[in-house]
Amino acid sequence: MREIRQADELRPISIDTSFNRYAEGCALISFGHTRVLCTASVEEKQPPFLRNTEKGWVTAEYGMLPRATHTRGGREAARGKQGGRTVEIQRLIGRSLRAVVDLEALGPRSISIDCDVLQADGGTRTAAITGSWVALRIAINRLLAEGVLKSDPIIGQVAAVSCGFVDGAPLLDLQYSEDSQAEMDANFIMTEDGGVIEVQATAEDRPLHWDQFMALKKLADKGIHDLAEYQRSAVAAA
Amino acid sequence: MREIRQADELRPISIDTSFNRYAEGCALISFGHTRVLCTASVEEKQPPFLRNTEKGWVTAEYGMLPRATHTRGGREAARGKQGGRTVEIQRLIGRSLRAVVDLEALGPRSISIDCDVLQADGGTRTAAITGSWVALRIAINRLLAEGVLKSDPIIGQVAAVSCGFVDGAPLLDLQYSEDSQAEMDANFIMTEDGGVIEVQATAEDRPLHWDQFMALKKLADKGIHDLAEYQRSAVAAA
Amino acid sequence: MREIRQADELRPISIDTSFNRYAEGCALISFGHTRVLCTASVEEKQPPFLRNTEKGWVTAEYGMLPRATHTRGGREAARGKQGGRTVEIQRLIGRSLRAVVDLEALGPRSISIDCDVLQADGGTRTAAITGSWVALRIAINRLLAEGVLKSDPIIGQVAAVSCGFVDGAPLLDLQYSEDSQAEMDANFIMTEDGGVIEVQATAEDRPLHWDQFMALKKLADKGIHDLAEYQRSAVAAA
Amino acid sequence: MREIRQADELRPISIDTSFNRYAEGCALISFGHTRVLCTASVEEKQPPFLRNTEKGWVTAEYGMLPRATHTRGGREAARGKQGGRTVEIQRLIGRSLRAVVDLEALGPRSISIDCDVLQADGGTRTAAITGSWVALRIAINRLLAEGVLKSDPIIGQVAAVSCGFVDGAPLLDLQYSEDSQAEMDANFIMTEDGGVIEVQATAEDRPLHWDQFMALKKLADKGIHDLAEYQRSAVAAA
Amino acid sequence: MREIRQADELRPISIDTSFNRYAEGCALISFGHTRVLCTASVEEKQPPFLRNTEKGWVTAEYGMLPRATHTRGGREAARGKQGGRTVEIQRLIGRSLRAVVDLEALGPRSISIDCDVLQADGGTRTAAITGSWVALRIAINRLLAEGVLKSDPIIGQVAAVSCGFVDGAPLLDLQYSEDSQAEMDANFIMTEDGGVIEVQATAEDRPLHWDQFMALKKLADKGIHDLAEYQRSAVAAA
Amino acid sequence: MREIRQADELRPISIDTSFNRYAEGCALISFGHTRVLCTASVEEKQPPFLRNTEKGWVTAEYGMLPRATHTRGGREAARGKQGGRTVEIQRLIGRSLRAVVDLEALGPRSISIDCDVLQADGGTRTAAITGSWVALRIAINRLLAEGVLKSDPIIGQVAAVSCGFVDGAPLLDLQYSEDSQAEMDANFIMTEDGGVIEVQATAEDRPLHWDQFMALKKLADKGIHDLAEYQRSAVAAA
Repeated sequence: MREIRQADELRPISIDTSFNRYAEGCALISFGHTRVLCTASVEEKQPPFLRNTEKGWVTAEYGMLPRATHTRGGREAARGKQGGRTVEIQRLIGRSLRAVVDLEALGPRSISIDCDVLQADGGTRTAAITGSWVALRIAINRLLAEGVLKSDPIIGQVAAVSCGFVDGAPLLDLQYSEDSQAEMDANFIMTEDGGVIEVQATAEDRPLHWDQFMALKKLADKGIHDLAEYQRSAVAAA
Repeated sequence: MREIRQADELRPISIDTSFNRYAEGCALISFGHTRVLCTASVEEKQPPFLRNTEKGWVTAEYGMLPRATHTRGGREAARGKQGGRTVEIQRLIGRSLRAVVDLEALGPRSISIDCDVLQADGGTRTAAITGSWVALRIAINRLLAEGVLKSDPIIGQVAAVSCGFVDGAPLLDLQYSEDSQAEMDANFIMTEDGGVIEVQATAEDRPLHWDQFMALKKLADKGIHDLAEYQRSAVAAA
Repeated sequence: MREIRQADELRPISIDTSFNRYAEGCALISFGHTRVLCTASVEEKQPPFLRNTEKGWVTAEYGMLPRATHTRGGREAARGKQGGRTVEIQRLIGRSLRAVVDLEALGPRSISIDCDVLQADGGTRTAAITGSWVALRIAINRLLAEGVLKSDPIIGQVAAVSCGFVDGAPLLDLQYSEDSQAEMDANFIMTEDGGVIEVQATAEDRPLHWDQFMALKKLADKGIHDLAEYQRSAVAAA
Repeated sequence: MREIRQADELRPISIDTSFNRYAEGCALISFGHTRVLCTASVEEKQPPFLRNTEKGWVTAEYGMLPRATHTRGGREAARGKQGGRTVEIQRLIGRSLRAVVDLEALGPRSISIDCDVLQADGGTRTAAITGSWVALRIAINRLLAEGVLKSDPIIGQVAAVSCGFVDGAPLLDLQYSEDSQAEMDANFIMTEDGGVIEVQATAEDRPLHWDQFMALKKLADKGIHDLAEYQRSAVAAA
Repeated sequence: MREIRQADELRPISIDTSFNRYAEGCALISFGHTRVLCTASVEEKQPPFLRNTEKGWVTAEYGMLPRATHTRGGREAARGKQGGRTVEIQRLIGRSLRAVVDLEALGPRSISIDCDVLQADGGTRTAAITGSWVALRIAINRLLAEGVLKSDPIIGQVAAVSCGFVDGAPLLDLQYSEDSQAEMDANFIMTEDGGVIEVQATAEDRPLHWDQFMALKKLADKGIHDLAEYQRSAVAAA
Repeated sequence: MREIRQADELRPISIDTSFNRYAEGCALISFGHTRVLCTASVEEKQPPFLRNTEKGWVTAEYGMLPRATHTRGGREAARGKQGGRTVEIQRLIGRSLRAVVDLEALGPRSISIDCDVLQADGGTRTAAITGSWVALRIAINRLLAEGVLKSDPIIGQVAAVSCGFVDGAPLLDLQYSEDSQAEMDANFIMTEDGGVIEVQATAEDRPLHWDQFMALKKLADKGIHDLAEYQRSAVAAA
């Protein structure tokens, strides 16, 4: 059951930046019952394809604990390969973060973002992106504080939110039971000032009208605005 | 170099439905120098998750010959795994086709679409989707002609086209040299009557404005309209 | 630095049985900074080798988040295989639990234990076993309460603790900085009433004397006794 | 059904050297309905085992599109490994070409031959070898024309043909329906002047007499002679 | 160094049929310093593709211990895949044995031949085939003696031998130091009465003349004749 | 059936150090019908993690021929991965040997131990460790004799033996039929002078008493003492 909230209201959001004591940046983020642990790990080495440059890199990996979900799923490490959905999501997270980082200014180092879903109730990829930015921001702040970086390579604040049509009406931040019956499912990855980083909209069953897509965009604008507030508070308190 | 054409004009399109003599449906489709062989294979069996139902399934696999590209890439079969990009694309093709097929009406059988890129010059996924619909349409027509199917399970005509901002201007159906310098790259998968199946827009480097996205949508509308014509001609001539 | 405690004293222990809302049994267990999420998932099906019997099975899988450790390790799912250490540990957890379960009494079902290390500071396998018993106990209690099971298949309470010789002196429940300099590292897996389930002792560098091993056994007896208390409290409060 | 031709006659042969615009050498070769795309890719690097020498290398990979055949086969990239038959064939192609190349004269570079079967009706390995020589010859001609090579490293012209006993009679260049009922299947890989590069003869069901093998050899001589003509014409027209 | 023997003489041959006490048939065969352990395992089940038939199957696997060779090679199980050479050889062994077995007469069961090279000095595949026939013969004799089989499914006696041109002269049964400098390497797999099962001849470096191939055939005839004697003695003494 | 011997008596032991002519050290060791071929291969290179040090390394791999056992098991190379049991055992062998080697004194080289089980009747891991020490000792003796090593890096003599409770009584060196019904199974890896290297004791079914464990220790002391004698004789005769 959807807990009672407005169609344009996010589920309860929380961000804990102290859950992991070793990572350079950390955010345990919850969108309702969805809970994703995001860590940022700084390594003073470049990926092979950047050798002989002064650029850095930001990459991401995504995983889900076998019992994050209502019924147990398989363990990808035991199966010996990451599924197609995992690969899609981790590539998306990486691209989204790199769109707001000046890789030249980051210098010859790598930041690896790990997003591990501890509990899944819909929206794991949007929670992962929103939390990853917090972990990245904290890790970069530490590099600035330590003097490793002289100028800030982060040039934007990115958050992500899902929305969809359920029972013919647009709805923000779908939980699993809503998502599984949505007619269209869209993820908006945007900056806090309205810049578009990535838009993915999928008609789940049948083609939809363009004005339905536009209605989702309107919801997403509000969701991104609210998430950006949570992110700033979490970073300020870290 | 971009061969001379208007910003809202497709590259030269051709569709050959006779290249493969064994498949139930076939389309060797070219978008400029991009050439993708799409085949539809009908099998009278269901995937395991549909057992004990009367539904059918449509799935897709995507591959690229090692020397489809300007410089030779590795062979996925030799590396022992499909790359993330491959997995993303083949899932997209499958979803796009299923959005216009009534799986109940298809009955307890499977149609496997294979999209193999023989030559790649940008837009392989949009060519693959556009050609796959043709191969699927021909395969279904054969099932109808043979009386295996009583009613047509295809409920829409789907095509796909890419567009992007290059040098600050919107451009339809990007070739590789354009795509690699685009500021935003979007793929629109739509039905011939304007229904939205999937939209994917990615800011390659920096966040963009929403009105830039809307300018791409306008180009896509024209591209989809033109591709749908080519599809109908190819099916009619098959 | 070792936080100040006696040589025969456990690190601070905590067990949270409510962290995961979906699993039939759950224990987020901490041994100092080591934190392992243990879930028990009940499935009404048998493994293939028990078909045509009335027996059940208990199995375990183990994993570690990439940034559980001081520096980031690789992700096993991305590498495509579980490492030797992972395989060793998950087999150990499974054996240890099965030694206190009457598989006939469990009936034709499976319980999968997932132990995922969220933070690692030494002793992850002993924390995993100790927490797994709690998750298993809660899951079984639920089956008893629901009437699925008529009699209790659990015939013993199992806990595990490490100990070692550090700087020539025996020490209980080693943290990572101690473990990495220990001359002998032993894990004792025992029941709360002193029964031996598994003993593993390894001289890290040079062979040691048997009386050193016996000194560790004495520490372990105390550790197991104390852990058993924590387990009972956690189950009672669940 | 075998299309009508003499027992010592090849199926219709065609070779198109312009199908792929990027490869340094290309031959889309048809033996009847069997159609194999062969490309030669030149890379200015040596394989690891030739480091610190002045020698080059020629290697080959072989693949088959899933629907090249009458019924769809699996995709090796999706299964995650190349089958035994694929491995055997690609090793054979590489060995056959290296037997007519002076690797010292080729200098410190690699030529990768990719043979991808677009349609399969028997004889894919012999078509692949015959076409690969054409692609290799064209690629080497280009290196000579560009002055990269001063002297021609190709020291022979190689072609391949299958033959077998069908219904007790020897037959040249078997199509699939013939091959599957042949009592002996032999592949002859020879130079245009009668040199032996590789002979593989397999009694499919029961041991055969040596004079049967010799009868096949006689057919092969004619087939190789005719194929060599087609090769020379294709290279001349490229 | 080649130990002194005539050009048409086999290396010292020995066959020990008692090395493994569990297999239904066993032959530890030596061709000089090459030593291969061949076992035949009978299982009362059919491979999947023979279900619903009354036919049996004979299959083979081949492996080499890492230190069978002069310098240590990798372990295929550790690398996670069988190499191309291994796959080629084990397919060859299986085909060669099936050519002398009436699979209908074998009935609905499988015989798995395992050929493991304990020491390798050239000719491992020919030793493996020659020894495998002995192991198979012994296993079948046991099935006949036990009354499981009523009639003998073995319809021929197969052996294999290598030969090659070394320093311009034909030589039988090459050891490693000879094989590595041979101009042509051929393997003949034949029945004791001259039937041809498989012939593989490879010019190692440059094309050779057909009469060179014929000279090897003559040597092989003698080698096969002599090996067949050793096989019969070993079976008789088993 | 257990062949008649005392409860504290080893099965018949034999060690053949000449079975493999290429390895720097070799021991084909038998514990009753269990037969393991252990080879030591010296390579003048370090593993990657020791680069820029002067230390050497000793590592081990373990395998079992498919028909080493009463019924045929699968081939790990064919399955594409080493099983959990294999990984556990080969890590144990490596650790056990390194505990008696001064890796600094070994210098910048690697010794790879391969333990391949040719026949298995229980105790393969203890036979493997006991035989590996012999192979290692012979290989090191050769390095000393050749002057490659100036001082002996081996600082202890290690052997291993299993013991268990069968029908309520302690028993040394279990064969398979005993091991499979043992209530506790323990492996003791010790030096000839009583030093403890690794102890692994597992209650197979139910927790046992500590004094049962101590009874096994007493048996192991005798077994290790006897095995050490066999080792010394084998090395002396090599």
